[in-house]
Amino acid sequence: MTAVENVAVGRGLDALFKPRSIAIFGASEDVTKIGGRPLQFLQKYGYRGAIYPINRKGGTVQSLQAYANVADLPEAPELAVMAVPPESVLEAVKDCAARGVRAAVILSSGFSEMGEAGNRLQAEIGQVARSSGMRVVGPNCLGSIGVADKSIATFSVALESAFPTPGHVGIVSQSGNLGSYTMRLAVDRGIGISRLLTTGNECDVDIADGIASLATDPATSVILCCMETCRDAGKLVRALAMAREAGKPIVVLKVGVSDAGSEAAASHTGALAGSDAVFDVVLRNGGAIRVPSIEQLLDVGHAVSVVGTARAPKGNRAALVTASGGFGVLMADAASAQGLDLPKLSARTQERILSALPYASPGNPVDMTAQVSSRPELLVQVLSAVAEDPACDAVILQSAYAFQMPRLRDVYIAALEQVRRDHPSRLILLCCKAPGDTIAQLNRLGFPTVETIDAACSTLAALVRLGTRGEPIATAAASSSTDALLQEAFANEASAKAALAQAGVPVLKEITAASRDAALAAAREIGFPLVLKIVSPDIAHKTEVGGVVVGVRSEAQLAHEYDSLLARVAQKAPQARIAGVLVAQMAQGGVELILGTKKDPVFGPVVMVGLGGIFAEVLREVALQIAPLTEAQATQMLRSLKAFPLLDGARGRAKADVAAAARAVAALSQFAARHADVVAEIDINPLVVMDQGQGAFALDALLVPETKGKP
Amino acid sequence: MTAVENVAVGRGLDALFKPRSIAIFGASEDVTKIGGRPLQFLQKYGYRGAIYPINRKGGTVQSLQAYANVADLPEAPELAVMAVPPESVLEAVKDCAARGVRAAVILSSGFSEMGEAGNRLQAEIGQVARSSGMRVVGPNCLGSIGVADKSIATFSVALESAFPTPGHVGIVSQSGNLGSYTMRLAVDRGIGISRLLTTGNECDVDIADGIASLATDPATSVILCCMETCRDAGKLVRALAMAREAGKPIVVLKVGVSDAGSEAAASHTGALAGSDAVFDVVLRNGGAIRVPSIEQLLDVGHAVSVVGTARAPKGNRAALVTASGGFGVLMADAASAQGLDLPKLSARTQERILSALPYASPGNPVDMTAQVSSRPELLVQVLSAVAEDPACDAVILQSAYAFQMPRLRDVYIAALEQVRRDHPSRLILLCCKAPGDTIAQLNRLGFPTVETIDAACSTLAALVRLGTRGEPIATAAASSSTDALLQEAFANEASAKAALAQAGVPVLKEITAASRDAALAAAREIGFPLVLKIVSPDIAHKTEVGGVVVGVRSEAQLAHEYDSLLARVAQKAPQARIAGVLVAQMAQGGVELILGTKKDPVFGPVVMVGLGGIFAEVLREVALQIAPLTEAQATQMLRSLKAFPLLDGARGRAKADVAAAARAVAALSQFAARHADVVAEIDINPLVVMDQGQGAFALDALLVPETKGKP
Repeated sequence: MTAVENVAVGRGLDALFKPRSIAIFGASEDVTKIGGRPLQFLQKYGYRGAIYPINRKGGTVQSLQAYANVADLPEAPELAVMAVPPESVLEAVKDCAARGVRAAVILSSGFSEMGEAGNRLQAEIGQVARSSGMRVVGPNCLGSIGVADKSIATFSVALESAFPTPGHVGIVSQSGNLGSYTMRLAVDRGIGISRLLTTGNECDVDIADGIASLATDPATSVILCCMETCRDAGKLVRALAMAREAGKPIVVLKVGVSDAGSEAAASHTGALAGSDAVFDVVLRNGGAIRVPSIEQLLDVGHAVSVVGTARAPKGNRAALVTASGGFGVLMADAASAQGLDLPKLSARTQERILSALPYASPGNPVDMTAQVSSRPELLVQVLSAVAEDPACDAVILQSAYAFQMPRLRDVYIAALEQVRRDHPSRLILLCCKAPGDTIAQLNRLGFPTVETIDAACSTLAALVRLGTRGEPIATAAASSSTDALLQEAFANEASAKAALAQAGVPVLKEITAASRDAALAAAREIGFPLVLKIVSPDIAHKTEVGGVVVGVRSEAQLAHEYDSLLARVAQKAPQARIAGVLVAQMAQGGVELILGTKKDPVFGPVVMVGLGGIFAEVLREVALQIAPLTEAQATQMLRSLKAFPLLDGARGRAKADVAAAARAVAALSQFAARHADVVAEIDINPLVVMDQGQGAFALDALLVPETKGKP
Repeated sequence: MTAVENVAVGRGLDALFKPRSIAIFGASEDVTKIGGRPLQFLQKYGYRGAIYPINRKGGTVQSLQAYANVADLPEAPELAVMAVPPESVLEAVKDCAARGVRAAVILSSGFSEMGEAGNRLQAEIGQVARSSGMRVVGPNCLGSIGVADKSIATFSVALESAFPTPGHVGIVSQSGNLGSYTMRLAVDRGIGISRLLTTGNECDVDIADGIASLATDPATSVILCCMETCRDAGKLVRALAMAREAGKPIVVLKVGVSDAGSEAAASHTGALAGSDAVFDVVLRNGGAIRVPSIEQLLDVGHAVSVVGTARAPKGNRAALVTASGGFGVLMADAASAQGLDLPKLSARTQERILSALPYASPGNPVDMTAQVSSRPELLVQVLSAVAEDPACDAVILQSAYAFQMPRLRDVYIAALEQVRRDHPSRLILLCCKAPGDTIAQLNRLGFPTVETIDAACSTLAALVRLGTRGEPIATAAASSSTDALLQEAFANEASAKAALAQAGVPVLKEITAASRDAALAAAREIGFPLVLKIVSPDIAHKTEVGGVVVGVRSEAQLAHEYDSLLARVAQKAPQARIAGVLVAQMAQGGVELILGTKKDPVFGPVVMVGLGGIFAEVLREVALQIAPLTEAQATQMLRSLKAFPLLDGARGRAKADVAAAARAVAALSQFAARHADVVAEIDINPLVVMDQGQGAFALDALLVPETKGKP
C-alpha cells in the first residue's frame, strides 16, 4: 500500500460543490447535447453564482454571454465543466490551470476506455492536474452536483424531471450511471441529498477523494458509495478511516463480485481491479457496510440516515412483530437467511402481550392476529412489551395494510409516537407500504421504513454489522528490506524454509545432505522417522520425479532409499541441477493447513489460510486478510473457517495447537509485508498443526520472487 | 404416501367461484365486521346471483331481506359463507349439508389454532363435509374470490379499495393474509386474476384441492401458491401432476424454510409440517417453480403469465444488454449469483453490434453506452444481433430511464415490436421502471418486465428452471409387506445387513460365530484380513465397549483378539446379551458414504446420501429424494453432491464405483418403500464405494422399527 500520510485525500473538492462561478466549455444551445444540459440545469434550478459559457463562436448561448476562451473571462471561474471533443480537452485543461481555475469536471468520453492513445492523453491531463494543483474530475464521468448551492456539473437525465431535495446523504460513484440512478431512486424515496460525485476514469480525483470530501462536508452525515475498482489502496484506506473518524457511516455497493462481473468491470473501467475477496476484507477492516444491490444501498442508506450510528443494534437478536401468522413465518425465514437470531421473549413479555391481545401468539415472531386491527390502541402495549425485553437488540414491525387504511393509520402512528418517547434509543424498523407523506412522517419520528420482508431483514442485518463492527483494523504500511538471506530464499525448499524459520514460522529439524554419509550423519542428529526430499532449483513437483520418500525408520533403510531416490530423479529429470537431499524430521499426526501470501495488484500482500488436504482440494475454503497481521487477527482468521471445528476438537478429536498456528500465520504475514517489494508469493503446503501445546510446522514452502515489468 | 387414485382432488370447488346463490351466516349491518364485509363487497362489486343474509333477527341487512335459518330460504344456496362465533359453526354446517348447499366457507376462527377443544370441533366439521359431500373451506381463513363471477366469500381488506381485474392468474394460499396480500400486490402491478382461494385450517378443502381447482379452471393459466404445510402428501403430488398435465406452470412460495420459520409455521398452522428439504424435493419432482419471497412469486408469476411455458428458455445462457457499463457489471454479478451463464457472443454478433454502435462494448454484458440514447433507432440492430446468437438462451435488456423519457420510449417500443415480430419465440426480459400504461404495453407485446436487476436475474433463473425441468418424476406408491425376514432384521447389525443384502444392498462376506472355533472356521471360509464385531441387541455403540477389532491378519491373532474382545465387552457391558461375534471380510481402500432412509411425517420414507467420514461430520451435506428411486435417480442424487468429485477421480484419485453405489441406493430405497409400515429408519454407515468395477458394500447397518402411537 502507498504511504499517504502527507497526501490530503479529498483536498480541494469544495470548488466542485460550492463554487462562486462556473465556466462551461462546449456550452451549447441544444439542450439534448452534453454541453447544453449543464447550462440548462444551472439556470432552471437557480444556481446563484456567475455562469460563463465558453464557445469559439462567442455571442450568447442560452441567453448568456459566451466567451471564446477562459482567458477572456472577467474573473477566474472556480469550476470549469468540459463538454468538448476529447482532442480539445487537454488544451482546455491547461488553459484552466493557467487561469487559476480550482477544479475541472471533464464530462467528455474517448479516453482510457478507448485504448492506448486515449490512455496517454488522459495521463497527460492527470499530470497537468498534479503539477498545477487544480483538481480534475473524470474524464468519461457524469460529473458532480452540490445540492445546497445548486452547483450542477452534470448532464445526467436524472435531473430532467426534478432537482434533489437538500439533505444529508452524500453519494459518490465511479460509474456515472450507477451514481445518478442511485440519486434518482433516493429522490423518489424522499431521501434528501447533500452531494453527488461521479469519478469516471479518475485521471486525478478518485473514489477515495470523493469519500473524503463527504467525510469532511458538514452537511453530509451518511455516505453511499458505488465502486468498481480502486486505483490507490492507501488513499482508500485513509478515506474510509476519515469517514469512520467523522462518525459517518459509509454504505458501499462494490460491483464485480463474480468472475463475470470482474471481467465486465475490467473492460468497463480499464483498471486492473484487485480481487473482490480482498476488497471485501479492506471494506470490512475500514468499517464500511457492504451491500450487494442498489436497492439495499438505498434501504440501508435510508435506515442509517434515520437512526444514525448510535442507535445501530449492538447484537443480532431481533424481535419480529406482525398481525399475521403467515407473514410471521416468512419473516422468520428471511431473518434466519440474514443471520439474525430470534430469541424467545421473556415470560413477562409474553404475559404482557397476551394481556393486551388474548388470541395473540406471543412467541417470536409475535403474531398479534387480526385482533389488533379491531383494537389498534393495544398495539402500544405489545410494542412496549417487546421493546423493553432485554433479550432483543432490535424490533421489526411488519404491517401489510395498516398504514394505508385511514382507520388504522393514525392509531398506529400514535402508538409508535408513544413507544418512541418511552424508548428513544430502541431501533424499531417498519416493514410496510404507505403513501409518501405517511412514510415521511414515520421517518421523522425516527422509524426507518422498507417495503418488503427481505428488505427489512437485510437492512436490519446491515445495521447490526454497523452496530457491532468493533474497533477499526489498521493495516500497517510495509517497510522495505534488504535481508541478505532473501537472495537465496528463492532457490529451493530448504532455503525458503530457512528464511521463514528465521522470520518465526517454525519448521521441523532438517539438514541438506550432499552425500549418503552426510545423510546418515544428519539422521543421527535429527532422529528417526525421517523424510527424504530432493533439493533442486529445477524441480517444482518433487513427487512427480520420485523425489520424496516418507517413513524412513533406520540407517539401513536410509542408505538404500537415498541411493534409489537419486537414481529415480536422475532418470526422470536428467537435466536437473541437484543441490542435495533434504533429510527432515517426519511429522506424525496433526491437521494440515494451507497457508500463503499473494500480492494483490491493488492492496499488496494478502494472507490466505485454509484447511489442507481434501478440504483444500474439494471445498477451496480460505480466509483472507491484508498483511501484516497480529496474532489476534490471525486467530480470528482461523476461527472464521467453516472447517475450524477440525482444529477445535470436533467429534472427539484432540484440540490442535491453534495458538501456534496463529503465531505462524502472523509471522508469515509480517515477513510478506516486510519483503513485499521482492516477494510476489509464498506457499506453505502444508503447515501441520499438532495437538495443543505441540506446535505448528511448515513442512514444505515455496517463495516466488517479484518479477518487475511482467507482461 | 396415501394412494389417491380414486379421490377427485379439487372436486366440487366450482361452487365457490361461480355459485348462482350465496347465503351469509352472521350477516351484519356493520361493514367493519367480518359478517358485514362480504355482503358489502358482493353488492358493491355487482355479484349477479341471489344473496341471502342469514341472521336470527330476520328483517333486512344492508337492504337485503334476511332469513333466520338456511331452511327458510326459497332455494338451497350453492355457497354458504359463515361469519358466526365458533360455537355456532358446527350447527350451521350441518344445516347447510342438510339443505343441499354445495360448498361452505368458514371465515370464523377459534378452532385448531386454539388448542384441543377447537381441534375436536374442527374435526367434527370435517366429518360432516366428508359424509355429506359438501365441500368446506377453512375455518380460520380469508375465504375465496371468483373474479369473473364476482363471487366474494372473504372479508379481506385487500378488496376495500378495488376489485381485481379479471385475468388468468389464480392464487391459492394456506395463509389468508399471504394469499390476499399477494392478490393485492398483483392487482397493483396490473396482473389479472382468475380466482383466489385461502384454505386456513383445512378441515376439508386443502391446498391440493385449491391447486387442482385452478388446474381444471379454463380461465386460469398460471398458478401462484403460498404453502406452509401439507396435510395429505398423495393429494399434493396428484394436484401438482394435474397442473403439469394441464400445461399450467405453478409457482410456489413455501414458507418455513429455516428452523425458526418451521417453528413459527408449526405454531401457526397447528399441523405437523414435513421437513422443508423434503418439500423442496416433492415440489421439484412435481415440476413446480419454488421461490423464496412474495416479490419473486409475483415477478415470476407475472413473467410466466406473459411468456407461457413454451417460451421458457431451454438453458441457462443469458445475454445481458445495457446502456451503462456500471449496470453491466452489477448485472453480471447478479446473473452469476443466480447460476446464469454469460457466454461469449459470436464474432458475427459482436461485429453487428459494433457496426451499429462503434463505441459499444460488445462483450457480454453488452454495453451500448450513451450512444444508444442519441440514436435509439439502432437498438433494433443490437437486439436482433443478440437475439439471433445461438450461444444464448435468453436476453435481459436493462434500461434505467429509457421507458420514462418520451423521446426514447417510443423508439424503444418500436424496436422491441420489430424484434418480437422477427423472433417470436425468443425470451427477452426487460429490467426497467416505467409508468403503468407503458408496462402494460410492453407486456402485451410479450415482454415480461421487472423493476430491479436482482429481480431480472432471479426471474430469468426461475424461467430457466421451468424450461429445463425435464420429465415429471413420479414416485410410486409403497406396497406393504410381511417378509418373514423382517421380524428379525431389527435385532442387530448382522440381521439388518442380511435383510439389506437380500434386498440388493451388497455386504461383504461375514459370519456370526458363537465360539472361538466357529470364528476360526469362519476365517478360513472368508479369508484374511478380517474385522471382528460384537453382536448384541443391547449394544448400540460397539466401539465404545471395545467391541470392534479391525485388521486381523492371522489365525493366531484371531484367537487372541476373539478372547480379549469378549473380555472387554463383558467388563464394560456386563448386562448385555451376546449373540456372538461377527467375523467379517475387511474392506481396504474406497470412499465412504453415509446412506439412510427416514420416514418424513408427511411424505413417507425419504432416502438420504452423503459423503461419509470427515465430510459428514463437518459439512453435513446430503442429497434427499422420496423413496423409492430408480438407479438413474440414485445416480443423479450422488452427482448432485458438492463432494461428488471425490467419487469421480478428483485430483488424480481412482474413480469410484458410482454405478454400484447407485444400485445400492436404489435397492435401499425400494426396501424402505416396501416396508414403510414397519421400518421407521435405516442407517448404513458407511457404505464403502470401491474403485470402479469393484462394487460398493454396507459395512454397518441399523434398522429402526416403526413404533405406533409414539408420544
